[in-house]
Amino acid sequence: MIDRSYYPIDPWRLRETGLPLGALAQSESLFALSNGHIGLRGNLDEGEPYGIPGTYLNSFYERRPLPYAEGGYGYPESGQTLVDVTNGKLIRLLVDDWPFDIRYGELHGHERSLDFRSGILQRDVDWTSPGGKRIRVRSRRLVSLTQRAVAAVEYVVEPVDGPARFVVQSELVANEAQPRLSADPRVAAVLDRPLEAVSCDSDDNGVVLVHRTRSSGLLMAAGMTHQFDIPGRADIDVDVREDWARTTVISELQPGQSLRLVKLLAYGWSSLRSETAIADQVGGALAGAQFSGWEGLVDQQRDYLDDFWDTADVEVHGHAELQQAVRFALFHVLQSGARAEGRAIPSKGLTGNGYDGHTFWDTEGFVLPVLTLTMPDAAADALRWRHSTLELAKERAQVLGLRGAAFPWRTIRGQECSGYWPAGTAAFHVNADIAEAVNRYYVATGDDRFLEDVGLELLVETARLWKSLGHHDRTGRWHLPGMTGPDEYSAVADDNVFTNLMAARNLRVAAEMAARHPAKARALGVDPEEEAAWRDAAAAVYIPYDDELGVHPQAAGFTAYAEWDFEGSRDKYPLLLHAPYFDLYRKQVVKQADLLLAMYWCTDEFSAEQKARNFDYYERLTVRDSSLSASVQAVVAAEVRQLDLAYDYAYEAALIDLLDLHDNTASGLHMASLGGAWTALVAGFGGLRERGGMLCFDPALPDGLAGLTFSVRWRGVRLRVEVRQSDVTYAVHDGQDASLTLMHAGEQVEVTAGEPVTRPLKDRKPWLPRPTQPPGREPASARATASPYDSTL
Amino acid sequence: MIDRSYYPIDPWRLRETGLPLGALAQSESLFALSNGHIGLRGNLDEGEPYGIPGTYLNSFYERRPLPYAEGGYGYPESGQTLVDVTNGKLIRLLVDDWPFDIRYGELHGHERSLDFRSGILQRDVDWTSPGGKRIRVRSRRLVSLTQRAVAAVEYVVEPVDGPARFVVQSELVANEAQPRLSADPRVAAVLDRPLEAVSCDSDDNGVVLVHRTRSSGLLMAAGMTHQFDIPGRADIDVDVREDWARTTVISELQPGQSLRLVKLLAYGWSSLRSETAIADQVGGALAGAQFSGWEGLVDQQRDYLDDFWDTADVEVHGHAELQQAVRFALFHVLQSGARAEGRAIPSKGLTGNGYDGHTFWDTEGFVLPVLTLTMPDAAADALRWRHSTLELAKERAQVLGLRGAAFPWRTIRGQECSGYWPAGTAAFHVNADIAEAVNRYYVATGDDRFLEDVGLELLVETARLWKSLGHHDRTGRWHLPGMTGPDEYSAVADDNVFTNLMAARNLRVAAEMAARHPAKARALGVDPEEEAAWRDAAAAVYIPYDDELGVHPQAAGFTAYAEWDFEGSRDKYPLLLHAPYFDLYRKQVVKQADLLLAMYWCTDEFSAEQKARNFDYYERLTVRDSSLSASVQAVVAAEVRQLDLAYDYAYEAALIDLLDLHDNTASGLHMASLGGAWTALVAGFGGLRERGGMLCFDPALPDGLAGLTFSVRWRGVRLRVEVRQSDVTYAVHDGQDASLTLMHAGEQVEVTAGEPVTRPLKDRKPWLPRPTQPPGREPASARATASPYDSTL
Repeated sequence: MIDRSYYPIDPWRLRETGLPLGALAQSESLFALSNGHIGLRGNLDEGEPYGIPGTYLNSFYERRPLPYAEGGYGYPESGQTLVDVTNGKLIRLLVDDWPFDIRYGELHGHERSLDFRSGILQRDVDWTSPGGKRIRVRSRRLVSLTQRAVAAVEYVVEPVDGPARFVVQSELVANEAQPRLSADPRVAAVLDRPLEAVSCDSDDNGVVLVHRTRSSGLLMAAGMTHQFDIPGRADIDVDVREDWARTTVISELQPGQSLRLVKLLAYGWSSLRSETAIADQVGGALAGAQFSGWEGLVDQQRDYLDDFWDTADVEVHGHAELQQAVRFALFHVLQSGARAEGRAIPSKGLTGNGYDGHTFWDTEGFVLPVLTLTMPDAAADALRWRHSTLELAKERAQVLGLRGAAFPWRTIRGQECSGYWPAGTAAFHVNADIAEAVNRYYVATGDDRFLEDVGLELLVETARLWKSLGHHDRTGRWHLPGMTGPDEYSAVADDNVFTNLMAARNLRVAAEMAARHPAKARALGVDPEEEAAWRDAAAAVYIPYDDELGVHPQAAGFTAYAEWDFEGSRDKYPLLLHAPYFDLYRKQVVKQADLLLAMYWCTDEFSAEQKARNFDYYERLTVRDSSLSASVQAVVAAEVRQLDLAYDYAYEAALIDLLDLHDNTASGLHMASLGGAWTALVAGFGGLRERGGMLCFDPALPDGLAGLTFSVRWRGVRLRVEVRQSDVTYAVHDGQDASLTLMHAGEQVEVTAGEPVTRPLKDRKPWLPRPTQPPGREPASARATASPYDSTL
Repeated sequence: MIDRSYYPIDPWRLRETGLPLGALAQSESLFALSNGHIGLRGNLDEGEPYGIPGTYLNSFYERRPLPYAEGGYGYPESGQTLVDVTNGKLIRLLVDDWPFDIRYGELHGHERSLDFRSGILQRDVDWTSPGGKRIRVRSRRLVSLTQRAVAAVEYVVEPVDGPARFVVQSELVANEAQPRLSADPRVAAVLDRPLEAVSCDSDDNGVVLVHRTRSSGLLMAAGMTHQFDIPGRADIDVDVREDWARTTVISELQPGQSLRLVKLLAYGWSSLRSETAIADQVGGALAGAQFSGWEGLVDQQRDYLDDFWDTADVEVHGHAELQQAVRFALFHVLQSGARAEGRAIPSKGLTGNGYDGHTFWDTEGFVLPVLTLTMPDAAADALRWRHSTLELAKERAQVLGLRGAAFPWRTIRGQECSGYWPAGTAAFHVNADIAEAVNRYYVATGDDRFLEDVGLELLVETARLWKSLGHHDRTGRWHLPGMTGPDEYSAVADDNVFTNLMAARNLRVAAEMAARHPAKARALGVDPEEEAAWRDAAAAVYIPYDDELGVHPQAAGFTAYAEWDFEGSRDKYPLLLHAPYFDLYRKQVVKQADLLLAMYWCTDEFSAEQKARNFDYYERLTVRDSSLSASVQAVVAAEVRQLDLAYDYAYEAALIDLLDLHDNTASGLHMASLGGAWTALVAGFGGLRERGGMLCFDPALPDGLAGLTFSVRWRGVRLRVEVRQSDVTYAVHDGQDASLTLMHAGEQVEVTAGEPVTRPLKDRKPWLPRPTQPPGREPASARATASPYDSTL
C-alpha cells in the first residue's frame, strides 16, 4: 500500500508532496511518461536513488532462454523480455563539491506533479547540500504525443541564499545498473548489460549512441541535444564514449539567477534498418524537436490532450478520489496506446518491466474497449499490430496440430513466450478476445477498410482455430474440452462457459462478416460450406448448467467441486503464493471474473435471473487475486442491481495502482484495470452495451454518487451522456447534422445535434441481497472513501 | 531395434556373437550386472569404445537445479540425478606397442554371454593388433549377490601365434568422460566431473579412492586389489592419484602361456559416515573378497542363483525366444532388488542413467508383485525403503496443504523431483500403489512384524492423504477431482476410475488393518472415528460409467472427448514427441493401461461383461507409448479370453529391451516391463489373483503355447503350477507338511506336499471378437515369432 498522505487529491493532477523513499519504485510507475512508443519511468532526474530504472522502447526486447525441468512438445524455447534502453533522462548536478542527492543534506521540499491536461511531469525541489548551499531545482519532463520519437526535459536550477558553483551533467547512459531481475543465472546474464555498442557520434546537432541487442539483434539509437539559458559565464563540454555521452555545463550563479537547460531526446529502433539509417532517423527527430523547441513541444502536447479530454473525459460527481483516479487511469491508457502505431500495447504499458513487458489478452479485453469508444484510431492500430503477427500465429497453430491462427498468450513481438502451458497455450480464449475486439471496433466505427485490410482475416483465422479445436459429441452438441478460461485458478477444464460462448461468437461473426464481404472471404479461401460449418458449430455449442443449484458452472463439473477453505486462507493472499495449482484448480475458488465476463460480453445469452443468481454464487468464490477482476465485477454488479457493490469495485479498479492494491505497482501499472475503471463506470453505471449494432444504455447510480458524465464516439459521432440520480441526458456533439439512434433502457431514442434527450431512470431494487465475498476479500467501501467535501452536481 | 542376428537364442543365457558398434549402448544395458547396490553397465573392459559409461551405487546422487520458465508454489527447486561413480571395471591392455581397441586391427571373434544361472558376464575376444600380433582375451565379470559391496573381474590374455609383450593396466577412474547428458548448461555443469577428490590411499591390501559430491555432499569410496597368475617374469607397478589409481603389469608371453589377473573391487558410500569410516568399510569389503577369492565368489554366486531359480523359474514351452526373454527379465529384476536393502529400486534398476536414475510407482506397481511372490524379503526391503522416506512424504503433504503422506512421483532419496506437476504431483495414485504393495506383501507373507514395523504406518498415512484429497458432493458421493491416473496422455482429470478405486481400497485396507492392530493404530493416532471416516469415504466412492456406450470412462467425461486422429498419426509415435500435451489430454487416446489396470488390480469391482466391453473399447485407443502397458494388456486380454492377443502382449513386454522396442534401452532396462513379463504369464495365462486373502488361479494357454510352469511363494509355502493346454497341476514343494488352499477357476482346492492336484481347463471362447489397435500399433504376433524348433511339452 502507498501512504496516501503524500498524495493530496486533485481532479486533474497526480501530486506527491514529499518523497517517501520506500515507495520510490511505485511512484516511478505512477509518474511514468509514455506515448506508446517511448516510455520513461518517473525516475529522479539525477538517477539516484531509484527503485527500478527504466527507459523503454515499445517492442524493443532481448531473447532469453525459457528453461523447463521437464520439457514437452511445442513448449517455446525462447522468451522475450523488455530491455531497459539508453537512459536519456539523466541530469546530474554538482553544487560546489556536493552531488545533488536527496539522501544527503537537507530536503526542505520535494513535490512532483503529473498534469493530465498538459502531459507534463513537474518536479520542484528545495534542498540544502551537506556543504550548506541551499538550491532550488525545477524540472519538467514530457514524452511527446505529437512527435513520436521525442522526449524532452526542462531543467532549472538556482541558488537560494548565496552564490554557488553548479556543474550540470546531462547524460545518455546505456546498460545502467539494474536491481536483480531474475533468480535464474542464465536469464540474469541476458539482462545484465543487454546492449552492445555499435557506434557513437557527436556534432553540433547533438550526440547519437547506437546499440544492438546481443541475441535478438535489434538496433536502437538514442540521441540528445541541448539548449541553454545561462546568465553569466559558462563552460560547456561534450564527452562521448561507447556506452555513454555527457554534456557538462559549469557556471556560477548568484541568488536570483538561474541556469536553465532544455534537453531534447530522440529514440528509434529497428530490426531491419541499418545502423546509419537508425542514427539518421534519430538525428532527424532531434532536428524536428529543436525546430519546435521546448515551448512548441509543450503547446503541441496541450493541444493533443485538450482534444483527447474533450472526447474522453469522465466526470464523477460526489467522489473526488475516484474522479482523480479515473482521469489518472484514462491518461495512462492514452499514454499506452496513443502512438504505439503498429506495436503492441503491453499489459503494463511502458511504465515498467513487469511480466517481462509482455502483451496479453488484457489489451483486447480491457484496453481496446476504452480506446475503441474514445480514440478509435489507436484501437485500430493495436489490432493492426495483431494482424502483423498473423503468420506467426498460423505457424503456432500448425505446430499445435490446429488450423487457423493461434495467437500467443504472452508476447512482445508475436512469438508465444508462455512457459506454462496450462495457463498459456490452453488459454485459447485470447483468440476469441481478439476477434471480439475486431468486431467491437468495426461495429463502433463502421470502418470497412479496416475490415477488408485486416479485420476479416483475423476473424476468419481465429474461427478456423476454433473449428479445429472443437468437436461434436454423439448427440450433436459442440464441445471445447481442455480449455483454460479467464480464471487462472482453474485450468484445462471442459466446456468453460466463457470460452464456449466466445468461440461460438467468433464463429458466428466470422461467418456473418465473410458473407457480407464475399470477395475478400473468397480471397481468404472461405467458401459457403466453411461459413455454414462455423454457423452450425456455433449454434450447437454446449453450455453446461447446474439445474440443481440453478447456476452456470464456470466449466463442466465446477459446481460439484469442494469449496476452497476460505476461512483458513484469510492471511494467504494471493493464494497462488500459498497453494499449489493442482489444489486451486480442483476446488471452487475463482481468481478473477470468468463466468461474470461471459455474462458481460455475451449479455444476451443469459436471462436477468440467471445473471443475478450466477453473480450471487460466484461472488462468494471470487478472491480477486487478479487485477482483471474488479472492473468486470463492477459492471455485472451494476447490471444485477447491486449498485453499492458496483461502486466499491469501480473504486478498486480505478485505485489499483494509486493504492498499490496488488503490491506490484513497482514493476508497472495495470493497464487492464485502469481501462477497466472507465468500463466500470461507463458500462457499469452507464449500462453501455452493444446489441445488434446499436448502442444501448441503461444508467443507474449508486447512492452517494451525484452524477456521472462521459462521452463515447460511435460511428464518427460524439455522444455525451450525463447521468444523474434520477435522470440521464444524451447529447450529440459533432457538427450540425450529427444524429444517433440509441436504446435507453429498452426504448429506442433518436438524439440529434443541439437536441439533447433526457429520460428518467427507473428505480432499481436489487434482485437478491448483497452477496458476500470470501472472508477478508471484501472490497473497500467506495462510499466510505468519499470525502464530505467531494463536489456534487 | 536391435539386430537380433547377433543374439542367438539360448534358454539360459544372453549371447552376443559379434560386436555391432551401433548398438553398443543398448548392449551395455542388456549386459549390465548389479546386485541392487552396485551396478556396472556392460562396458568393454578396456573402456572404449563405449555408448554410455556407467558405474552406479544405489541412491548415490548429485543435486541439480530444476529450472522453470514460470515457477509456481510447491514446485521442487532441486532434483536428484544418479552419478557415474569411480569406474573399477577398467582393464586396459597394450600388445607390444598397440593398445587393445577393437576399432583398430582385425577382430576375428567377439562373443559376450550373460549366464542367468552363474550370474557371470563372459567375454571372448580373438583379435590381431594393427602391429600383427594375434591375441585372445577372456574376461569374466560379476557383481556379487552374496557380498553386497563387491564386484570382481577375471581377465586372461594370451598370444596366439607368436610371443608378445603385454602391458595390463587395471584402473580405478573417477569423473570419466561422459556423452552430453543435458541440453541445459547448468545441469550439464553439475554432471560434468561430479566427484571431488577427498583422499587416496594404497597399501599391500589394495587401493582406495574416496570422493564426495559437490552439492549433495555424499561420500563414496572405491577400492581395488589384484591377484595375478603369470608364468614368467613380470613387473608390477601401482600408481595412485586423486582421481585415478592404476596397477600396471608387464610381461612377455609365448604362445600357450597366458596372463591371468583377478581384480577385486569394493564400493561403499554414505551421507553420514566419515571419510575414514567409508575407506575402512571398503577396505574391509576388499579383505572379504580376497578371503573368498575369485572361485569362492563364483561359487557363492551360483548357489545364490540356484536357489533363486529354484523358486522363481518360469518355463515356457513352445516359444524359445519368450523362454529366454522371461529368464532374462527375471534375472534383471532379481539384480535390481536382490541387495538394495534399504534403498530404492529405480525404474531402470542400476543398468543406466535413464530418468535420472529415479524410482517411480513402477517399483510398487510392477516390480514388487514379482518379488513378493518369488523373493519376498527383497519386496519387504523395498517397502522399508519407502517407509524410511515417510517423514519427507509427510512434509511434502504439508507443503501441498494435505494431511498424511504424499510420496514423490519420482525420486532417488525421497524428495519430490518431478518438474512437471500435471504428470507429477497430480499423479497421487503412487500413494495407493505403495499401499497396495504393502497389502499385497502382507497378504502373501502374513509378515506381522513388517506390518507393525512399517506396513500399518504406510497404510495409515496414505489413507490420511486420500481422505484430505477427496470430498463428498451434495448427494454424498465421494470424489477425487483433478487427478492424474496411470495414463500419461490424460492428466488432471476428475474421478479417474483407477485412482478412485485404488484410493478407496487404500482407505478400506487401512481401516481394516488398523482395526486388526489396534495398539499400533492408536500409537499412530488412529481412532475408530478416523477408521469409520475412511470406510465411509471408500464406500461412497464415485465411479463414473457411460450408460450409453456401456463402458467405464477412464475418468469423468473421457468417453465424450473426440477420438485422436490415429490414422494421421501412423508415423508419429511416440505421440508425445509430435503433439502437445494439451491436445493429448483432451482427446480419447491412451498411452498406457489405466482403466485396464483398475480392472486387473480391482478385479472384483467389474463384472466379466464390463471387463470384456471395456477391454474392447480401450484397445482401440491405447497406443502403448509407455513400457508399462503391454504387460497389463496381456493380463486383461487373457482374462477376457483374448488369449492370442495376451500372448502377443506378453511377448512384447518380455522382449522390450532385447528388441529395444521403445528405442531407449541404451539408457537402461525397463524393470517394470521385465517384471511385467512375469506377470503377463503368471497372472495372464496362470490367471493368478488374490481374493480375500486366498490365492486364485484360472489358467488358460493360447494356441501355440504347449505349456507354462511357474512357482510362487505363498505364506512360506512354495507352489509349483504346471499349465498345459488342457489341464493344470498344482504341487506344493516345501517340506513334508506343507499345504495350501487355493481356488482353481472358482473351485476351492487343497494341495498338500507330495499330492499334486490336477484339474482340467475349461474351454474359453472369447466374449467378443479380437479388438483392433490404433493403426500401426498392433503388437507383433507372438505365434509368428515362435520358431518351428521351439520345444514343446
